[in-house]
Amino acid sequence: MNNKIGIGLLGLGTVGTGVANIVKSPDGRHPLVSKIELTRIAVRDIERSRDIELDQSILTDDPFEVVKDPNVQIVVEAIGGIEPAKSLILLAISLGKSVVTANKAVIARHGKEISEAANNAGVYVLIEAAVGGGIPIIEPLKQSLGGNRIRKITGIINGTTNYILSQMAKEDANYQDVLKEAQNLGYAEANPTADVDGHDAADKISILSGLAFGGSIDREGISTKGISTLESIEINYARQLGYEIKLLAIAENLSINATTAIKSIPLGLRVEPTFVPKEHPLSVVNGVNNAILIEGDPIGEVMFYGPGAGAGATASAVVADILNIGGIMLMQKEDKTLDPLLSSNSWRDCFLANAREIEHKNYVRLITVDTPGVIGKIGNVFGKNNVSIQSIVQFDSSHAGAEIIVITHKVSKGQIEDSLSEIEHLEEVIQIAAHLSCL
Amino acid sequence: MNNKIGIGLLGLGTVGTGVANIVKSPDGRHPLVSKIELTRIAVRDIERSRDIELDQSILTDDPFEVVKDPNVQIVVEAIGGIEPAKSLILLAISLGKSVVTANKAVIARHGKEISEAANNAGVYVLIEAAVGGGIPIIEPLKQSLGGNRIRKITGIINGTTNYILSQMAKEDANYQDVLKEAQNLGYAEANPTADVDGHDAADKISILSGLAFGGSIDREGISTKGISTLESIEINYARQLGYEIKLLAIAENLSINATTAIKSIPLGLRVEPTFVPKEHPLSVVNGVNNAILIEGDPIGEVMFYGPGAGAGATASAVVADILNIGGIMLMQKEDKTLDPLLSSNSWRDCFLANAREIEHKNYVRLITVDTPGVIGKIGNVFGKNNVSIQSIVQFDSSHAGAEIIVITHKVSKGQIEDSLSEIEHLEEVIQIAAHLSCL
Repeated sequence: MNNKIGIGLLGLGTVGTGVANIVKSPDGRHPLVSKIELTRIAVRDIERSRDIELDQSILTDDPFEVVKDPNVQIVVEAIGGIEPAKSLILLAISLGKSVVTANKAVIARHGKEISEAANNAGVYVLIEAAVGGGIPIIEPLKQSLGGNRIRKITGIINGTTNYILSQMAKEDANYQDVLKEAQNLGYAEANPTADVDGHDAADKISILSGLAFGGSIDREGISTKGISTLESIEINYARQLGYEIKLLAIAENLSINATTAIKSIPLGLRVEPTFVPKEHPLSVVNGVNNAILIEGDPIGEVMFYGPGAGAGATASAVVADILNIGGIMLMQKEDKTLDPLLSSNSWRDCFLANAREIEHKNYVRLITVDTPGVIGKIGNVFGKNNVSIQSIVQFDSSHAGAEIIVITHKVSKGQIEDSLSEIEHLEEVIQIAAHLSCL
Repeated sequence: MNNKIGIGLLGLGTVGTGVANIVKSPDGRHPLVSKIELTRIAVRDIERSRDIELDQSILTDDPFEVVKDPNVQIVVEAIGGIEPAKSLILLAISLGKSVVTANKAVIARHGKEISEAANNAGVYVLIEAAVGGGIPIIEPLKQSLGGNRIRKITGIINGTTNYILSQMAKEDANYQDVLKEAQNLGYAEANPTADVDGHDAADKISILSGLAFGGSIDREGISTKGISTLESIEINYARQLGYEIKLLAIAENLSINATTAIKSIPLGLRVEPTFVPKEHPLSVVNGVNNAILIEGDPIGEVMFYGPGAGAGATASAVVADILNIGGIMLMQKEDKTLDPLLSSNSWRDCFLANAREIEHKNYVRLITVDTPGVIGKIGNVFGKNNVSIQSIVQFDSSHAGAEIIVITHKVSKGQIEDSLSEIEHLEEVIQIAAHLSCL
């Protein structure tokens, strides 16, 4: 055994190859990169020809063999999916090896079990690449923002949907056409469900939320709405009104006074297409880029922006995690205490609050019969439910009937839902054509 | 002695008070905050009444006493300026104590001496708050981007000048009026030189550059141009042409092939008001906000955005550093090896390249006599010097004579300077009224 840190790489797809490329060309990077060695690599097919030059003898098609190899000190899981990824991660932990993974699905669903196992075994499971691709966000949350009470996280954290929405706005195109284009360009998968229906963003906001608020929540309970039913007419109205539509993942601390030490913290978590005012920094995040805005006390607002996916960006994040663990290995010879910032511990209870308590502005598009007095009737229903209106405008419409756009001030989801179910039953209202949140 | 980590705070101004406020109210913050204790605080006047409740017995007016106090384990220097800050930092190091400071002036000028002393003593000197206020940028550079070859850093890292430029653009106001307003609001100091002449930004880019490129450079050699002579007419033209003017601090690796292990890395560093295209993410950074864009291989572009100053933001960054050092103290009982990522070591030689080699686009405004053929003559001079022109436009002018705006493609500073000194001598040219770089 030499004095380098041995990496066992599971998977040599885009991310795995990106990591191998960095490790094999350390010049010009942080000197710690040169202390890392690719000891063993699990691939699906050993015989396949590859773009990267590797010592064939370190390849195997058995990922468990890699994890068990005594010369492997850090396991990099780049296979994806729930199984066998989860078993491999838990095996590594049980053997006292730290793990680096970009696997948001397994962390969002089994993060608690995995981090408890890691803490008991005295090892790290680092996941910088799981959210925001190359953007440093996990580590800053763990190590740079610890002095803050985090109030809210607002993120564009799915590159596929952000690309689709950006193109729909730019080209005035409809969803299906842009999706097809995105699939051809490799920005969307053949089965795009996880992205376009918001599940990938929900995985990621659940991970960020656990780090920011100190406790994990029920992943399956996150209110999730995707972009597949979004009509391009909404994007047009958004632009006319001074907004862009983005698929946002939002997590906020709903406790009235965040400074009080209450027993369990109510969180509001949601993923949904949202009107973002043009002067808001998230409105200019286009294409496959991601951005995460964090509001905390006393820091105010900080935003992290960058490539949300891609081999290079993801590999950069994976290597960051490897370097962090490697650095600690070099520091600690005798001591085995975990770094209290890098290791992930829940430090308070959190729970998903009733979604009706979440407050935000709203965009509502109604199709009504074109008679005098209809705006008055709609306004009355909102007024009765204490929904304060910012603007209510009748647009020219090609539909039979009138098209009315309402923007509300900040009200609870409960208030707006109650109002809309009453409005739906007004005889002049033909249809509630759209209802979206606004920042 | 209890089992808390003892902080010695030097200075109880805005930043010091912000830090004390965080430490005294740990609820809702990372649990490590509750392990920190304010052991001793140096103030200028012990008797002065303060907004913060503190045990009077820990106050002293002798900062050296704080540094020497055996119960102080981490020294937080929040005095600013070169002396006595530098002596206090070096004293703390010599006593084996880690230091946290927001003092960019002392780090930019004496960073090498300080970090060598710290490395020899086996302690840390962390400086997250020195650049970008609350924005996590130092730590991400050290800990999250180590797998990359950094090509370029482009930053808006002075809040005062960004506020002034934003207001000049928004209100169509002139420099002197906005400066006065900024002084009244506390965004600019009574003596604004360090900010408006670019020296503060030069301090900061020199610090970022040392971290990103692995070697320190001669701070005094950085080409620095401020905003005090910028005319509002330039801001108007910029907007008409699709740009905003920002005071940018730029550091780039000029070696032709960044992948080759060359002996010493030529860097181009400059601070200057720059035309930023409206579609560029830095163009929308307004007011006292800061943003730092980093380009690296393989990550691509990442940007960090947030409040560049203010008590809360700066305190957040100082506490981040305290938590990092505190975390390591809790991890290491026997071992004393420094964290190779957090500790700051030069790992290669860098030098300031000849500024004439730096390449960028240019904006040039000329006042000429209003005769036919003048555009041709100017175009010829640029052509002779191999300066490729993107656009050359004659604007209506209230001056006697014509006003000609030239935007060039990317050329070396040398080429553009040679061209301009020739153009200056053309008989039709009355004046080179402005010359600015463009992104």
